[in-house]
Amino acid sequence: MTAHADPVAFVALALAVILATAKLGGHLAERVGQPAVLGELLVGILLGNLVHLGVAWLEPIKADANVDVLARLGVIILLFEVGLESTVREMLQVGPRSLVVAVLGVVVPWLLGWGVGALLLPQHSIYAHIFLGAVLTATSVGITARVLRDLGRAQSPEARVILGAAVIDDVLGLVILAVVAGVIAAADAGAAFSFADIIWVLAKATLFLVGALWLGLRVSPRLFGAAARLRGEGLLLSTALVFCFLLSWLAAVIGLAPIVGAYAAGLILEPVHYRDFTDKGEHPLEHLVRPIGSFLVPVFFVLIGMRVDLAAFARGDVIGLAALLTLAAIAGKQVCALGGLGAPLDRLSIGIGMIPRGEVGLIFANLGLSLVVKGERIIDQGVYSAVVIMVMLTTLVTPPALKWSLGRARRQVDTVQ
Amino acid sequence: MTAHADPVAFVALALAVILATAKLGGHLAERVGQPAVLGELLVGILLGNLVHLGVAWLEPIKADANVDVLARLGVIILLFEVGLESTVREMLQVGPRSLVVAVLGVVVPWLLGWGVGALLLPQHSIYAHIFLGAVLTATSVGITARVLRDLGRAQSPEARVILGAAVIDDVLGLVILAVVAGVIAAADAGAAFSFADIIWVLAKATLFLVGALWLGLRVSPRLFGAAARLRGEGLLLSTALVFCFLLSWLAAVIGLAPIVGAYAAGLILEPVHYRDFTDKGEHPLEHLVRPIGSFLVPVFFVLIGMRVDLAAFARGDVIGLAALLTLAAIAGKQVCALGGLGAPLDRLSIGIGMIPRGEVGLIFANLGLSLVVKGERIIDQGVYSAVVIMVMLTTLVTPPALKWSLGRARRQVDTVQ
Repeated sequence: MTAHADPVAFVALALAVILATAKLGGHLAERVGQPAVLGELLVGILLGNLVHLGVAWLEPIKADANVDVLARLGVIILLFEVGLESTVREMLQVGPRSLVVAVLGVVVPWLLGWGVGALLLPQHSIYAHIFLGAVLTATSVGITARVLRDLGRAQSPEARVILGAAVIDDVLGLVILAVVAGVIAAADAGAAFSFADIIWVLAKATLFLVGALWLGLRVSPRLFGAAARLRGEGLLLSTALVFCFLLSWLAAVIGLAPIVGAYAAGLILEPVHYRDFTDKGEHPLEHLVRPIGSFLVPVFFVLIGMRVDLAAFARGDVIGLAALLTLAAIAGKQVCALGGLGAPLDRLSIGIGMIPRGEVGLIFANLGLSLVVKGERIIDQGVYSAVVIMVMLTTLVTPPALKWSLGRARRQVDTVQ
Repeated sequence: MTAHADPVAFVALALAVILATAKLGGHLAERVGQPAVLGELLVGILLGNLVHLGVAWLEPIKADANVDVLARLGVIILLFEVGLESTVREMLQVGPRSLVVAVLGVVVPWLLGWGVGALLLPQHSIYAHIFLGAVLTATSVGITARVLRDLGRAQSPEARVILGAAVIDDVLGLVILAVVAGVIAAADAGAAFSFADIIWVLAKATLFLVGALWLGLRVSPRLFGAAARLRGEGLLLSTALVFCFLLSWLAAVIGLAPIVGAYAAGLILEPVHYRDFTDKGEHPLEHLVRPIGSFLVPVFFVLIGMRVDLAAFARGDVIGLAALLTLAAIAGKQVCALGGLGAPLDRLSIGIGMIPRGEVGLIFANLGLSLVVKGERIIDQGVYSAVVIMVMLTTLVTPPALKWSLGRARRQVDTVQ
């Protein structure tokens, strides 16, 4: 009946399939001692590649815009939850260390990626090599944040260093993108390249982060104080979500990822701000946000898995490039461990935590598909497939590797004591 | 920066605006002793009509497909929550009474609407008059369910009679639509009209309701028993959501509104089914679903308000038709009170609870815009505007009227005791 041909019907089916398989995958992963998120990713890869076995009815889920937005809301909620577990003060303490980790984790993979490009793609121009290096720079914080939460380590100093570095990485990624796209556009047009643009991007991003933190710390207690005087149900949760969504949107307006805003919102909010609510018997914010996370966060990870096309592996010509890119991506981030020098930190875990490239690498690569210098495409389909494989491998290797390295560090501490 | 031109950014802004204004509106409504939902609707009307004052930046929210789906998920969660507050056994007890209420509440408004059409639109064909009557039949259960919850009366026998009748109304609405659209199509083509189609629609719908209840009661305890043996977090909530979304989707496949499936899912689920979880210390399902409701339900009601275009009132030619249609819609449902005869029920509240037409009337009217008999449109823009005003008034009148009638009944009980 057309009267009830409701767009939510397909979304409801997709959510049912995703939630059911996510929980099964998470269960199996935990059975073999791995973080639940690995199971969600693998179940997603399974669902997404059933089409190669003739099962096509799941295909529309991958491309559905509504499911996609639910997944993006899921990762916003995840970063908000992770942010709630730390405070701004704790982040500022690890700030200098995060900055070192972030800068090393951008420069070294860039140079390595550039080298891989020069080695394996000599027929491409130097611009293609520079761009390929840039694809390796950005850290996708979703996977690491989730693994740290699955393992109950989101409040550790290592977690704060990694998450702080990932936020800085996002700013640096913006700058790199502006530089590389600017250089390429200038090269294509034969024009001069403007440094003022770069300065402007950097200034905007810094201003947002500093401004959001400062304003948030001043505004948040008053906002919650005012909300506590309203009548109605669910006011604490609603006010917190308004704060989270506003900062996510603001981050996007500046050109940062919305999850950076959500993480900042979580950092800013502290129990003392909403004391008026908890004094009245409201549950703490973490408890209120968790059911929304249980609902939306798996959508993000299953969908990431579903979008992995195993057919990329069938292209023999890209396997070599993919393997070297993956090595460069993993090895390049291990210098991040140097950022942990001089402190009693688990340096190996910091290096591993910076590995996943997730969707950010794909966004860069997608942009590369549309960039042209003197008629030559900066990234062609073969290179793009290799980038997809690199993203997939760095994403899948992180949960077990991080679990192993965190466990190793804990065992060492136990042995020493 | 295109790299982060994220579709979730706009949704995040829309959610922040909607949640913040919803809570303010709910607060103001409760201040003057009205249900919070009335405040959410009025705030929505305000936001949606700011465009007439030159504020246009909110306009995209009305038409955004992602926000629309979040609103539809919100009303699914609301009906699931309301369903959780009753059991199948309790519904079967009021079943015959709901059937009487539903049938009366369909037949009488239909005849009244037909009469209004014949009186005020003599230039239109009898098909237009029949269709206008049909627009008045469907009950939109979202408003009533929300008011009953706001007032803490969702578990009362009156609430069950109304919600049961609304479910049956949805089935009858399907049949009416099939009949009217069939008759009109046959009249346009000069062909015979098939009764088999109607029987088939009715059979499918009945089969779904009976089958879903029977199967659900058998499957649900096993489903939750199996889920309780899995490892992982949030399993109770996820399993319940999978169940709710699957039934919502199934309802849509049959041609019913997804919320009918969500309500059935809530009815079926009982604490005894998921005892294994609560024995392990999990919170009851109602507590787990509530934060998701706090997040999504206001989106539905604010969006309904935003889509009310006050400009419809400026059309002098439709005001008369709108006023008579609204009277017919309200008066026609008051015979529903007869369904409460012979039982110690608050009959006035049942009649009032059936008043809101909400989006269902608009769906009918939209369909009418596309139906043509011998070159004449069944519903033209003027009639459509009158229907919009009728829907708006029946929606806005219900919260205060229901609050008043339920309070009156309670005062009478107090006086007698």
